[in-house]
Amino acid sequence: MDSSMESAKMAKPPPKDMSHHFSDVTLARLPSKMKEYYKYFLIPGIGQLAGGLPNPQFFPYDTLEAQTAKPERWTPTPNRPGADSLLASQLASTSLSSPPPLKKSSDPRAAPEHVVVPHDGEGSDPLKKVDLTTALQYGLAAGYPALLSFVRQFVRENLHPNVPYEGGPEVVMTVGSTDGMSKSLELFTNIWVEGKNPVSERQGLLSEVFMYANVLSQALPRGLNVAPVEMDGEGMMAQGPGGLEDVLANWDESKGKRPHLMYTVTMGHNPTSGVLSLQRRKEIYAVCSKYDVIIIEDDPYWYLQYPSAELNEAKARGLPIPEFKEANTLGNKSGYPFLDSLVPSFLNVDTDGRVVRLDTFSKTVAPGCRLGWITTTPEIAEKILRISETGNQQPSGFVQALVAQTIMGTQQTEGNATMSRFAALRSSREKAAFNGWKVDGWVRWLAGLRGEYERRMNRMCSILEENAYQLKQSTPVRKSDADWGVITKTQLYEFDWPRGGMFLWMRMRFEQHPLWQVPGSKGLPINGTALTTALMILLTHKPFLVLVSPGLMFSTTPQIADERGWAYYRLCFAAESDENIDKCSHRLVQGIHRFFRIKKVKELEDLLNEANAMSEEDLNTRDGLANMGTYMGC
Amino acid sequence: MDSSMESAKMAKPPPKDMSHHFSDVTLARLPSKMKEYYKYFLIPGIGQLAGGLPNPQFFPYDTLEAQTAKPERWTPTPNRPGADSLLASQLASTSLSSPPPLKKSSDPRAAPEHVVVPHDGEGSDPLKKVDLTTALQYGLAAGYPALLSFVRQFVRENLHPNVPYEGGPEVVMTVGSTDGMSKSLELFTNIWVEGKNPVSERQGLLSEVFMYANVLSQALPRGLNVAPVEMDGEGMMAQGPGGLEDVLANWDESKGKRPHLMYTVTMGHNPTSGVLSLQRRKEIYAVCSKYDVIIIEDDPYWYLQYPSAELNEAKARGLPIPEFKEANTLGNKSGYPFLDSLVPSFLNVDTDGRVVRLDTFSKTVAPGCRLGWITTTPEIAEKILRISETGNQQPSGFVQALVAQTIMGTQQTEGNATMSRFAALRSSREKAAFNGWKVDGWVRWLAGLRGEYERRMNRMCSILEENAYQLKQSTPVRKSDADWGVITKTQLYEFDWPRGGMFLWMRMRFEQHPLWQVPGSKGLPINGTALTTALMILLTHKPFLVLVSPGLMFSTTPQIADERGWAYYRLCFAAESDENIDKCSHRLVQGIHRFFRIKKVKELEDLLNEANAMSEEDLNTRDGLANMGTYMGC
Repeated sequence: MDSSMESAKMAKPPPKDMSHHFSDVTLARLPSKMKEYYKYFLIPGIGQLAGGLPNPQFFPYDTLEAQTAKPERWTPTPNRPGADSLLASQLASTSLSSPPPLKKSSDPRAAPEHVVVPHDGEGSDPLKKVDLTTALQYGLAAGYPALLSFVRQFVRENLHPNVPYEGGPEVVMTVGSTDGMSKSLELFTNIWVEGKNPVSERQGLLSEVFMYANVLSQALPRGLNVAPVEMDGEGMMAQGPGGLEDVLANWDESKGKRPHLMYTVTMGHNPTSGVLSLQRRKEIYAVCSKYDVIIIEDDPYWYLQYPSAELNEAKARGLPIPEFKEANTLGNKSGYPFLDSLVPSFLNVDTDGRVVRLDTFSKTVAPGCRLGWITTTPEIAEKILRISETGNQQPSGFVQALVAQTIMGTQQTEGNATMSRFAALRSSREKAAFNGWKVDGWVRWLAGLRGEYERRMNRMCSILEENAYQLKQSTPVRKSDADWGVITKTQLYEFDWPRGGMFLWMRMRFEQHPLWQVPGSKGLPINGTALTTALMILLTHKPFLVLVSPGLMFSTTPQIADERGWAYYRLCFAAESDENIDKCSHRLVQGIHRFFRIKKVKELEDLLNEANAMSEEDLNTRDGLANMGTYMGC
Repeated sequence: MDSSMESAKMAKPPPKDMSHHFSDVTLARLPSKMKEYYKYFLIPGIGQLAGGLPNPQFFPYDTLEAQTAKPERWTPTPNRPGADSLLASQLASTSLSSPPPLKKSSDPRAAPEHVVVPHDGEGSDPLKKVDLTTALQYGLAAGYPALLSFVRQFVRENLHPNVPYEGGPEVVMTVGSTDGMSKSLELFTNIWVEGKNPVSERQGLLSEVFMYANVLSQALPRGLNVAPVEMDGEGMMAQGPGGLEDVLANWDESKGKRPHLMYTVTMGHNPTSGVLSLQRRKEIYAVCSKYDVIIIEDDPYWYLQYPSAELNEAKARGLPIPEFKEANTLGNKSGYPFLDSLVPSFLNVDTDGRVVRLDTFSKTVAPGCRLGWITTTPEIAEKILRISETGNQQPSGFVQALVAQTIMGTQQTEGNATMSRFAALRSSREKAAFNGWKVDGWVRWLAGLRGEYERRMNRMCSILEENAYQLKQSTPVRKSDADWGVITKTQLYEFDWPRGGMFLWMRMRFEQHPLWQVPGSKGLPINGTALTTALMILLTHKPFLVLVSPGLMFSTTPQIADERGWAYYRLCFAAESDENIDKCSHRLVQGIHRFFRIKKVKELEDLLNEANAMSEEDLNTRDGLANMGTYMGC
């Protein structure tokens, strides 16, 4: 680094003090009592009669091991798709009758690596050592040192190399992003109870008009005023009617305080699939800075950005091929073309230090990890730590050790290190353990996953695209007019090809339905909520048998659900297997076509009655509960 | 079961409604929105486009595996020790110069079992199936079905077979007991802010005069009034001055509401080591029932009850050998002599349904599990679930799967089941995987651990016992009086041999110290707080080099710390190895003896200055942090 770069780095301003945003409970927290005694723990050779620890000799596990994928298991897609790319040609072959062949010719689970976490590690560097004596003992709330140091370096050097404040961001591990959000709410918001606390004390939470419903379940019991902001294909809008500036500038104080907190998903939005551009981020950030709003950015799908979506959408619709635009034009590069091709996080424009970013291993490794991290300023990270210490303490050492060992590999033994008592017993299999994915392998793994999900997205979209229209044959006026009468083409639904994430957001054109606004048996006109419920039920019938998530579930307020939430469905193209994506997509469009041919009020109302009457008996059996468990997630 | 037993079971009253104890936030919680859609998930063959799940094919782990101890690895101690027992004879040989030989003649880690969690399980029963497709996917907040069903059955049939309310208790998994306590506080308490909320709304938390400090760190930032209750050797006192009834009957409402919540450790109390008898439990429960108090019972050390302690203490002190008393005289038996020999939980006298019991795998498997459970009424368990769903969701699937597989083994394959695609690839090693500890093995493992810790307890106590007195030689008045003058014997400390847990609670007789109440350099008399701090520092010096936890840390209020907390140290006999227990105990008593020979105020004040001046520089290095991590726990 030359001296001018050095001085440029030195010139970064520190993050601003954000403590005026902290909740009453956060402000009342004192440092852990135990912390005062830490200094004594560091005395070499000290006999530990102080801490209440079990002896690691008594852990029943002598090793943890795993068969692990090579990073190259899955096939990436191009960062910059062109007209002649494999993807485009693959897409062209996609048709209803013959989906493209699956890419993987041989068993992808052949030749996995064998990962071993030993009971007692041999290296001397705690930031590289992974063993059960440390990983299964009480540990730091910030995370297992080896894993934390990997994540911290990856975040600072590769993922967010443009953070504009002095010293850069800190990292704290979480038990997944729901945990990260729960801690963020505890950190930044006070509980407000109607009839007990004055309205003037009620705090707010800004989010998009459609949002991840679990965050509502977190925010509403705390009495937060959830304030919806309008969105477009990218995500949240900064300006315009209902946009962020409009909401904040015209805030009605009689409803409570102007919100000081925002929750937003910006890369593959849940449920709407948009990816927020760098330009839009700058606009939103400027408004947040002006009105002093903390931004909680929750991006489980950050690495699932699909550059082919815009291109393939245009081709499928016969529109002009759009020009390719770089998503990230900031100065510092990650060292990896894949990472550099993705839009950057709000962290990279966070001059004030008001961004709290939630990350998770749920979508890159597995949801069952319950492992993620928060990236933010040191001041805010320290407060998150205090919450962790008195809550879930730390993510499980089982997953931290296995993920660390998978990514980092075994620390090299010093040439003349004495082998531990048990090291000599280890099998040759264990000694041959592979040496970790490292950053290269980790990035390659992510690029491979992006490839798999991007191809699924394209398969689903092409099937939906081909079946968006219903052809109707009008009855010939006279026999001689034509053999088939006049054919009219009605578009049943519309959607954007997802620019990121795991979801397709489909707007059903219920206003085209024959029974739209027709009086029902009780005399009231049949509305969108009735139609969306009836269609959802019909889709669960044979032969359609597909389950979709209604837009009602993601509507930020009941008003939004009533006004337009009923028009949408969220389709997940991630959960099912490749083969089933095609089958489910076909069954879905067949069900929709069937639904738009319903002309009798009775048939529709039978479906609605079924929705109300469907027994919850199954829910009361433990078997039923066990089966349902796997579908909770999001 | 005969019909009279049947009708006796039927006659149990249901638990009482406890919803008036719930917090504002708990009362504001609605069932998860997702739950309304669960019924559709159960439709056979349904295509899943609804839930936001990644595809399990993309989890990088093809198996999780572990080398695991056999349940017989450690040697139990008798449930009913006699005068001629191995333990007593072993104790007799304990002396300063030659500790008894370690029990384990061969390497205990030889011949471990190999546990394998496959990617796709073959059985059909979700309550027995353990595989990565389910364990690493999103799951139920109550816990992984296989593990939950094991724990639930163990709790209801073996651990607490006498729960007196209809239907028995429910179980919800937690991320360890700190998480369990955090959720309990959220469930039962409102946040109170001084100067913002009226004092009349301030809620309280009852606990012993000495308590686990981390719970203070959880309760105080919520504004709870922590109310200390007097204790004796067993634990909390029900009656008498400062006892529970006294505190509640004479509650001063001007300090806030009379507490409706109690936190108590009852089996190997932290820090005082007592075990609460069944009789005392009944007395405390009656008071709680009278004043409508919820009991949170936190017992990480429940299986570490030491029947030899009373016996060996009496023998070491030349007192009459006490008569052996059964700890559990309730009607229903567990099926295991070891379990039946332990005092029963408050759950077994909980006629009202006001007990919330916290359990953890931290001390039976490893703290790094971050895995535990709550046992309570279905009504309260359901509210805990709602908190989990919007918080950490579930314990990590990595640890749930490995613990489940270790205990439960592999589900038997049906004779004619079709093997899954990847099952055929599995190695013979995997097929030979052992078939689980089962309940028998689990109980045997716990009994073995109890044996190990009980022997350590006895080793430490016998060393402390032999060195509790300082011999002082008075100067002979005349040469001819005697060769050695008059010898006086001063007792430097006192303690009970721990009846349970991991700690020894030692009262230092600082009032015997030569500098007790002597004026210091600033003219103020040297008090207990100064002496306890100075001794703690001296003990960290060579050649003593032991770290103890001062009683100041565990004093429930600052007033208790001032009045008597300074007199105590908590010694943990669990963390160090067998050999080090002896060495550390010897170094400890040598340090104490040295300390009581300090006669110069200057020497004492140098130690105090060191306590204040000791640099925290090490704390600012990441290496330092990494090293400290392992000592956080309790």
